[in-house]
Amino acid sequence: MAMDPDAVAKAFVDHYYRTFDTNRPALVGLYQETSMLTFEGEKFQGPNAIAGKLGSLPFQACEHNIVTVDCQPSGPQGGMLVFVSGSIRTGPEEHPIKFSQAFHLLPAGGSFFVQNDMFRLNYG
Amino acid sequence: MAMDPDAVAKAFVDHYYRTFDTNRPALVGLYQETSMLTFEGEKFQGPNAIAGKLGSLPFQACEHNIVTVDCQPSGPQGGMLVFVSGSIRTGPEEHPIKFSQAFHLLPAGGSFFVQNDMFRLNYG
Repeated sequence: MAMDPDAVAKAFVDHYYRTFDTNRPALVGLYQETSMLTFEGEKFQGPNAIAGKLGSLPFQACEHNIVTVDCQPSGPQGGMLVFVSGSIRTGPEEHPIKFSQAFHLLPAGGSFFVQNDMFRLNYG
Repeated sequence: MAMDPDAVAKAFVDHYYRTFDTNRPALVGLYQETSMLTFEGEKFQGPNAIAGKLGSLPFQACEHNIVTVDCQPSGPQGGMLVFVSGSIRTGPEEHPIKFSQAFHLLPAGGSFFVQNDMFRLNYG
């Protein structure tokens, strides 16, 4: 399977944040039992714990604005690192807050799942 | 070898930024031929290209201030992801600029090298 890593990263990023902003519970499908999330320093493992955390964030509507997407192959496992910066707005009257996020995607059945996910707000 | 990933990550981060701020050419020793750096979107591979880029940055003295360090094991290869946020000041009269950086460390000979390095300034 020939693939352009930048195109895969862009497709993943588009899918991830569109899902986050429109159907957050569906993010559960991107994680497996070995997956880890570190969210503002708090650690979660496995799809249920991770989706539970993301679902419990104290806002209903949100909107991500992506500014940069970098990617690199992560080594012989065929994985990919995706490094994102942007801003998130958690309501129509809220100010956007900058964030950065690093994902490690591993191949599974012709697609990828999120093995590692680390998220930080970058207060301005 | 038992090791606490958080302690390894903290030791790496201390070493990396101290070396960057006091003896930038010595960073070459942290990278191998397969290593990749994406610096503000520009891609470099291998120790010479990476250290060449870092050495050519247009400032002499700099000072990193690290605010957060997150780490996760990256999978069965025994690697580790390290995700850093902080600020860099590139001279005594310059304002600090926020940055974020993601490293993927792989084991080699009882230590680690930097397989992946992605750096972005987060303009405030």
